[in-house]
Amino acid sequence: MTNPNTPRVTDIGERGLLKILQQYCGEMVGDDAAPMGATLPDRQMVVTTDMLIDGVHFSDRTTSAEDVGWRAVAVNLSDLAAMGAQPWGLVIALGLPPETPVSWVEGVYRGMAACMQTYGTQLVGGDTVRSPIKTLSITAFGQVDHRQIIQRHRARVGDAIVITGEHGLSRAGLELLSQNSFAIAGQKMDLHKVKELYPHLVTMAERSHQRPIPRFDAITLLQDITQEYGWDWAIAGMDSSDGLADAITQICQASQVDADIDWSAISIPEIVQILAGDRARDWVLYGGEDFELVLFMPMEIAIKFVERMPSAMIIGRAIAKPNHDSASIAGLEMRSTFQHFGTSISPI
Amino acid sequence: MTNPNTPRVTDIGERGLLKILQQYCGEMVGDDAAPMGATLPDRQMVVTTDMLIDGVHFSDRTTSAEDVGWRAVAVNLSDLAAMGAQPWGLVIALGLPPETPVSWVEGVYRGMAACMQTYGTQLVGGDTVRSPIKTLSITAFGQVDHRQIIQRHRARVGDAIVITGEHGLSRAGLELLSQNSFAIAGQKMDLHKVKELYPHLVTMAERSHQRPIPRFDAITLLQDITQEYGWDWAIAGMDSSDGLADAITQICQASQVDADIDWSAISIPEIVQILAGDRARDWVLYGGEDFELVLFMPMEIAIKFVERMPSAMIIGRAIAKPNHDSASIAGLEMRSTFQHFGTSISPI
Repeated sequence: MTNPNTPRVTDIGERGLLKILQQYCGEMVGDDAAPMGATLPDRQMVVTTDMLIDGVHFSDRTTSAEDVGWRAVAVNLSDLAAMGAQPWGLVIALGLPPETPVSWVEGVYRGMAACMQTYGTQLVGGDTVRSPIKTLSITAFGQVDHRQIIQRHRARVGDAIVITGEHGLSRAGLELLSQNSFAIAGQKMDLHKVKELYPHLVTMAERSHQRPIPRFDAITLLQDITQEYGWDWAIAGMDSSDGLADAITQICQASQVDADIDWSAISIPEIVQILAGDRARDWVLYGGEDFELVLFMPMEIAIKFVERMPSAMIIGRAIAKPNHDSASIAGLEMRSTFQHFGTSISPI
Repeated sequence: MTNPNTPRVTDIGERGLLKILQQYCGEMVGDDAAPMGATLPDRQMVVTTDMLIDGVHFSDRTTSAEDVGWRAVAVNLSDLAAMGAQPWGLVIALGLPPETPVSWVEGVYRGMAACMQTYGTQLVGGDTVRSPIKTLSITAFGQVDHRQIIQRHRARVGDAIVITGEHGLSRAGLELLSQNSFAIAGQKMDLHKVKELYPHLVTMAERSHQRPIPRFDAITLLQDITQEYGWDWAIAGMDSSDGLADAITQICQASQVDADIDWSAISIPEIVQILAGDRARDWVLYGGEDFELVLFMPMEIAIKFVERMPSAMIIGRAIAKPNHDSASIAGLEMRSTFQHFGTSISPI
């Protein structure tokens, strides 16, 4: 596939590569560590890290270099948004086989730069090493006013359960990017035909998988609403990177509450209905990688929030736990959603 | 080599692994990002990241799991010390093949914990993923009073050039850990015999390679001296992780000065003399991985500094550059010391 004349990393060496990559970075002085500037008063630093491995979390088959870069940054920024934090900077460590085309590395940096620019943050440092397998490790820092932090353990009985958008789309996008034929309404249909019939839905699903969006907009809106009405910040939550069911379960367990879910309130995206058929609800609950926020908050805030954010939905309420042994979700068949090791393949 | 009854990562899964690893971490709440606490006033945050790959930067042959963990943390802490910063916290992302023995992972964490405890810092977050190759990616944060930061570009003509300790020992340690026979004074000698003849020197060299020491003690001493005498903080520098020659060159280039090195002032460790023979000076200049600090400072500070730190040496002075084309070091034959890609193997 690769043009034999395409320069590889080994052709230009580490210093040649760094020279090319510097254009995507902020003012990096080249010291042993990168100065990050001063913190704002009353802010707490938060930090998150994710490692992405070729063949496990991305693949040339489903993800362009640009999308690998965008996703790698977006996944980390989503973790910051899930804490209510604003991004402050990122560092990236990159492991590359010597035969990696330089153009692939540039693509990754272009994608990262596009995502960082969109959400107002920048690269402050990095490391580039030789590895037998393409590996990205990103660490993102954010700042949050300690009075407005979002954590999993703060949900309370009576809270509304809110999601910032639809689920299952990223899973549908992954199917579209990795499969060539589909069973639709009992009939075999090839990818070409699916794209012809549902061009916009297909594009939207692929986009969801390739270019996830950290929901900083939801955080800003919640800050506006609580300030406008003088309400206390009483918001628990996390992102739905490991699946909607997983997020609800994690928050319930951390907060010692149960969840009463209104299944009819969870909309199923049309393309998920088309591709998954009987398994549509599974894709919505367990598909993962949607990077929406799952938030528990007082009903009065929730009502104002969904009024102003059309993609958001109230999907249930937190209820008291009958005992303290385990979290249960009324109507939700529990199962393990995410296992990095062993036989299951994690979508990212 | 591995006992078939030894539990592997795939046997206990990600959650099982996290449960075991949590004992090595601080209070990790399990949110999407880790709160890091408040910063001190007048401090600047600095951050550094390093990726370590099995077979490239460490190997079971030369490095125990505990040493991999210690080294990974120490390398990053050394970057903080090289900026004059105090450590504030670390995150680690770990890529593991499913068949990795759990005991190896625990060993790495024990080594990391030992190093973090020694230098008063802690793990604040992490990520664990499946990878075909053992990969560690560590990001360390520090804080430095912005008036006492150490950078490469601040050296001035007339500065003394100071190293905090001997060089070449880590390279000697690597040889001892990876070779079985040596040519000593023209005679072939096996490892066993070398160890018998020079037990303490061998142990010291191996230790230098396996358990590098970030030189925070030098930073503290410089702070004490400048405060005691009321001298300005006028210190440039970096660590010698990529070799002594590389560090001198980098600082000279960044500061637009040349270096006049007093070769007789650079002591050659006895074990380096024994093992390297004619190449002893090469090991000292280009061996790398010694993690000492290479500092440029006014002579008055340098004199007090080496008086109180017996391992330190004044090895030369910064002199004016005749032109601005390239840095030169009087008497130093320049060559590329470190290349991560291509055919050369980087020692770490």
